Amino acid sequence: MPERPLTVRHDPNARGFASDNYAGVHPEVLTAIAIANGGHQVSYGEDVYTEHLGEIFRAHFGERAQAFPVFNGTGANVIGLQAMTDRWSSVICAESAHIHVDECGAPEKVAGLKLLTVPTPDGKLTPELVDAQAYGWDDVHRAQPRVVSFAESTELGTVYTPDEIAALAEHAHGHGMLVHLDGSRLANAAATLDVPLRALTTDVGVDVLSFGGTKSGLMFGEAVVVLNPDAARGVEYLRKSAMQLASKMRFVSVQFEALFANDLWLRNARQANAMATRLAERVADIEGVSLTRMPQANAVFAVLPVDVTERMQKRFRFYTWDESTGEVRWVTAFDTTEADVDAFVAALAEELR
Amino acid sequence: MPERPLTVRHDPNARGFASDNYAGVHPEVLTAIAIANGGHQVSYGEDVYTEHLGEIFRAHFGERAQAFPVFNGTGANVIGLQAMTDRWSSVICAESAHIHVDECGAPEKVAGLKLLTVPTPDGKLTPELVDAQAYGWDDVHRAQPRVVSFAESTELGTVYTPDEIAALAEHAHGHGMLVHLDGSRLANAAATLDVPLRALTTDVGVDVLSFGGTKSGLMFGEAVVVLNPDAARGVEYLRKSAMQLASKMRFVSVQFEALFANDLWLRNARQANAMATRLAERVADIEGVSLTRMPQANAVFAVLPVDVTERMQKRFRFYTWDESTGEVRWVTAFDTTEADVDAFVAALAEELR
Amino acid sequence: MPERPLTVRHDPNARGFASDNYAGVHPEVLTAIAIANGGHQVSYGEDVYTEHLGEIFRAHFGERAQAFPVFNGTGANVIGLQAMTDRWSSVICAESAHIHVDECGAPEKVAGLKLLTVPTPDGKLTPELVDAQAYGWDDVHRAQPRVVSFAESTELGTVYTPDEIAALAEHAHGHGMLVHLDGSRLANAAATLDVPLRALTTDVGVDVLSFGGTKSGLMFGEAVVVLNPDAARGVEYLRKSAMQLASKMRFVSVQFEALFANDLWLRNARQANAMATRLAERVADIEGVSLTRMPQANAVFAVLPVDVTERMQKRFRFYTWDESTGEVRWVTAFDTTEADVDAFVAALAEELR
Amino acid sequence: MPERPLTVRHDPNARGFASDNYAGVHPEVLTAIAIANGGHQVSYGEDVYTEHLGEIFRAHFGERAQAFPVFNGTGANVIGLQAMTDRWSSVICAESAHIHVDECGAPEKVAGLKLLTVPTPDGKLTPELVDAQAYGWDDVHRAQPRVVSFAESTELGTVYTPDEIAALAEHAHGHGMLVHLDGSRLANAAATLDVPLRALTTDVGVDVLSFGGTKSGLMFGEAVVVLNPDAARGVEYLRKSAMQLASKMRFVSVQFEALFANDLWLRNARQANAMATRLAERVADIEGVSLTRMPQANAVFAVLPVDVTERMQKRFRFYTWDESTGEVRWVTAFDTTEADVDAFVAALAEELR
Repeated sequence: MPERPLTVRHDPNARGFASDNYAGVHPEVLTAIAIANGGHQVSYGEDVYTEHLGEIFRAHFGERAQAFPVFNGTGANVIGLQAMTDRWSSVICAESAHIHVDECGAPEKVAGLKLLTVPTPDGKLTPELVDAQAYGWDDVHRAQPRVVSFAESTELGTVYTPDEIAALAEHAHGHGMLVHLDGSRLANAAATLDVPLRALTTDVGVDVLSFGGTKSGLMFGEAVVVLNPDAARGVEYLRKSAMQLASKMRFVSVQFEALFANDLWLRNARQANAMATRLAERVADIEGVSLTRMPQANAVFAVLPVDVTERMQKRFRFYTWDESTGEVRWVTAFDTTEADVDAFVAALAEELR
Repeated sequence: MPERPLTVRHDPNARGFASDNYAGVHPEVLTAIAIANGGHQVSYGEDVYTEHLGEIFRAHFGERAQAFPVFNGTGANVIGLQAMTDRWSSVICAESAHIHVDECGAPEKVAGLKLLTVPTPDGKLTPELVDAQAYGWDDVHRAQPRVVSFAESTELGTVYTPDEIAALAEHAHGHGMLVHLDGSRLANAAATLDVPLRALTTDVGVDVLSFGGTKSGLMFGEAVVVLNPDAARGVEYLRKSAMQLASKMRFVSVQFEALFANDLWLRNARQANAMATRLAERVADIEGVSLTRMPQANAVFAVLPVDVTERMQKRFRFYTWDESTGEVRWVTAFDTTEADVDAFVAALAEELR
Repeated sequence: MPERPLTVRHDPNARGFASDNYAGVHPEVLTAIAIANGGHQVSYGEDVYTEHLGEIFRAHFGERAQAFPVFNGTGANVIGLQAMTDRWSSVICAESAHIHVDECGAPEKVAGLKLLTVPTPDGKLTPELVDAQAYGWDDVHRAQPRVVSFAESTELGTVYTPDEIAALAEHAHGHGMLVHLDGSRLANAAATLDVPLRALTTDVGVDVLSFGGTKSGLMFGEAVVVLNPDAARGVEYLRKSAMQLASKMRFVSVQFEALFANDLWLRNARQANAMATRLAERVADIEGVSLTRMPQANAVFAVLPVDVTERMQKRFRFYTWDESTGEVRWVTAFDTTEADVDAFVAALAEELR
Repeated sequence: MPERPLTVRHDPNARGFASDNYAGVHPEVLTAIAIANGGHQVSYGEDVYTEHLGEIFRAHFGERAQAFPVFNGTGANVIGLQAMTDRWSSVICAESAHIHVDECGAPEKVAGLKLLTVPTPDGKLTPELVDAQAYGWDDVHRAQPRVVSFAESTELGTVYTPDEIAALAEHAHGHGMLVHLDGSRLANAAATLDVPLRALTTDVGVDVLSFGGTKSGLMFGEAVVVLNPDAARGVEYLRKSAMQLASKMRFVSVQFEALFANDLWLRNARQANAMATRLAERVADIEGVSLTRMPQANAVFAVLPVDVTERMQKRFRFYTWDESTGEVRWVTAFDTTEADVDAFVAALAEELR
């Protein structure tokens, strides 16, 4: 039988501003996958690539760090939160948190956790905001607040400074709570702040981290990173029962190896961030566009006339964030180019004319 | 910064007989992934590769078939079972079923399902065996049996004929129950029987299928395939809350496309099966080896002296299946070669001498 | 062995204002229990008292009503909500809802439900407030809003009019959602409004009701009342798996029979309400007390100086509602007397002097 | 309005042999309830009757015992098992265990627990039988066996001796597992063996006990009794989230007080047991009746011709236990009289003639 090659069904040069998970796989990651292929390796994480990954994570996050590769971010979050909580616990988070608004109730359904939400102006928790939910200790009628979970960078494109995280963590710990970081875009925050990853995590009191890979250029893959082993129990079992244990795990682990080799994570994050900044700066001057705030990572929020949004969405992919206000979100990725930005800005100026 | 290439950390030519998920990725699958790369594609399954995958599954499983790519087999099983059941349902399966013995309680923990197990001689359910648990209708004290779940090929390497599946499904349906097939090795069964995939599924009454890709040569990926849309509800939502919704889904879907293109699934299954047969036939003649049964797919079970097993396990990877009897399991994969088998057989003969 | 009688360990004449579940059992209810005692009756609800209860509920709530006696209010709520929802559903409720703040996460943990909360000025939902959460249909990332749950009377002592409930229900139904009423104090609302129970439930679009007995003078007992049988599935099974199926159910059912006989529910509610009104009216004139609002049922909210609250709590049981504002809650019960109220008011006047 | 008294709807002198939960409430228990009535008491367990109950349980079960009154047996079991387990745990029990066959999947659904069942000849576990499931430690694919749960007396009417329990507990502890006792009929076992309750529990290594009240003559009420506080966590919270926290708890607690006062539990158990023995002895002589075994507590199992069973069931309530063999179960209760037994035996002899 002559082999028919598969068809390229999409335009490999078309990029939009809808999400960093619309992007594909960075070539260095694909190469790494090929390197790990061939022969047999023990499944479910006892392969040599996963073993080596432990060293890499310890180098970046400290000697106590334990990394558990998983498939996706919701999985990482739900495993991490379960490992930190009892059956009667609850989790304090921002009203805009991904775990609250975008995971189809997985924390509640799979982990039985109640989320106690707090409205925030910019997606960021503060000690004061946490206190709106941090009460009811020893009250059996209240699912006990046990974890403060925050995202860095946030779902609104904002970034916590190391000091802000330290203050949040200290406050949480002072209440006897633990700290969970949804770091699906941690790389973008570290790039913005020009600090190492541990400056936003291990060094400032984060106990358990969901470390994102997919939005940084992997094909798939996140890691539950236990930074404080006293704060988490049973991650290995929870990963399996949460259906996040990859059988051919070497192909997750080697992607992370590629991400850390030659600072790919940082190169990718810097590119995405720079393109967001470029986009924000260029549209700021266009009349009819109102930036919600200057972007701190790789997401730009702005208010546009609805008809302009509709016309632009026929030309470029992006999402309306808030239908009531006309706010839209533009996200850049590791593969966004200056030309992409400039074409978008030109189109926007045209539509607004 | 000069790029340092990643290191090959394993022997790409070493293969054992531990499991078909110790194998890597078939080259045609890697090629397919590269084809789907580049540019932006809508995430979470609205990409063109996933769209095209629907056609492929309909061609193989009938016009009503709906395929939902997911990460792994436990995920596929738990989603499929939830889609078929109510909150008060239970599932009848063999005592040796993967969903019972190898998923860390995910069906119970994530789906709240009770599994009603039946001992079997060879891993295969029959209508009579099902009846040992198919009772208690309308008894509020009994979680209501709603699904019969079986594996093809089974965890014991045995294969149901189409007639056997038809009889099982007819019996289940007669009780008002639905039929779920854990098909992580469905390809191997179809290859053994030399029938199309639908002859073991759509045509004989299976309602929902977990279709395996990982053990057939994918990097990762299974599919929940709803064959009878009247039998399943909410798969899209359940996939998300079960943390099995891949953001860059094109890379799961295109792997399946490669698996079906040029009958890769069949070529891979035939190779694995042929190697299992070769292995069984060759060891059958060795004194001191007692085959449990002739293999019907890609798993060989045999009883060996314990000391021989221990020595062999230092030379080749494989698992002891039953410590009490000394039974071992040898699994072949798509990449197992005749030389692999012959080297193994020679070593075994040597150790048994 | 001569029998030692049990000791009365408490003061049967001491009553406070902490909660209507601090009260005991109405004598007519105790009598009813004695009537149902003796001999054998089929357990788990197939007794003659439970059978008869069906008639009673149909008389009060319409011919389609189905009543399922359970142990307590949290149980009734969690069963009712499960019967109305799929595994991927969510429930919209007020931020002050009992199901959100006082059930230790049971809806999340037992039912896997996400609660979507809305801040309210007075504990009451409106169509407009519901719309703050009623969106995201067909978005697999969002647990699908399926039920609007409200309390009558509310946790803040306010009462919806029949028209308000009708508007809320019509709005929910218009979105394809169902309506759940937490009616632990439904009797108090009906007494306030001087309408039959069905005017607040069946006649205005409520689909499933948790009908309260405990706070109306029963020893224990609530009922899941399915008003719209098309809106609920599996209540019998859910009641068992939610651990709310009483084996000697005749003793729950006959308590409800007593509650409806001779309008005990109404007599009790009127007494409690009248005492709340008396209390509010009398304290309104005391300088230093600021009523939050005039009570509409049997709960009075007021702001007091903290030191006064502390001194009063040494003399009478009641709870601080909001530590940040000094707001306290006083609840009256079926057994609260005019003398109780007057003694409390006198003490308060004394402490405020 | 003149008060209409409630109607007695049943025959208070008719008793059968269907179950000990067909019986009503012992008069001393009703009296106790009346004693606890009147006035206000703190709800949710901070009343004086519940406080006193602690002393009583410590007197019977040792100084470390902590008792948590709940509504029913399924609730007690599910709370106790949760308090002893992690989210990745499983529970070993007999295939005939109530938690497995009669709780509609509550342990799986509410607690997410997998039950690992073992066939037994007589409902009793042994160390050898436990070992059929006690394996797979550290295997992430296996929900980790953490608790051995057994019933005393068993669902088959058999009784473990203290030595048998001690051996079972020692074996479980040796594996690092804990021991849970479903004691819904513990009183019957203690009466049979003529030992104090602690001889079957605290003194022989049981960690957590579900202590039954309902089948001993209470209206409702069981208690989770933590005998080894190191073995259980979070019972207070789990009781609430499991919807088993009674608001007017004094009326549960005072029933238990009555049960222990004047050894009511023992008097009731002895009466039930004696009637079972009488029944067994009398029917043993009737031709056509084949006793499965001599009863050890209050349940008699026998095989009858199916037509005789059908005719007898028109005259007396009782259940067929095994339709395939014609085995029936007769249960006696605290209120079963010699006359009841003799009438039943006479009828049986008549039908068999």
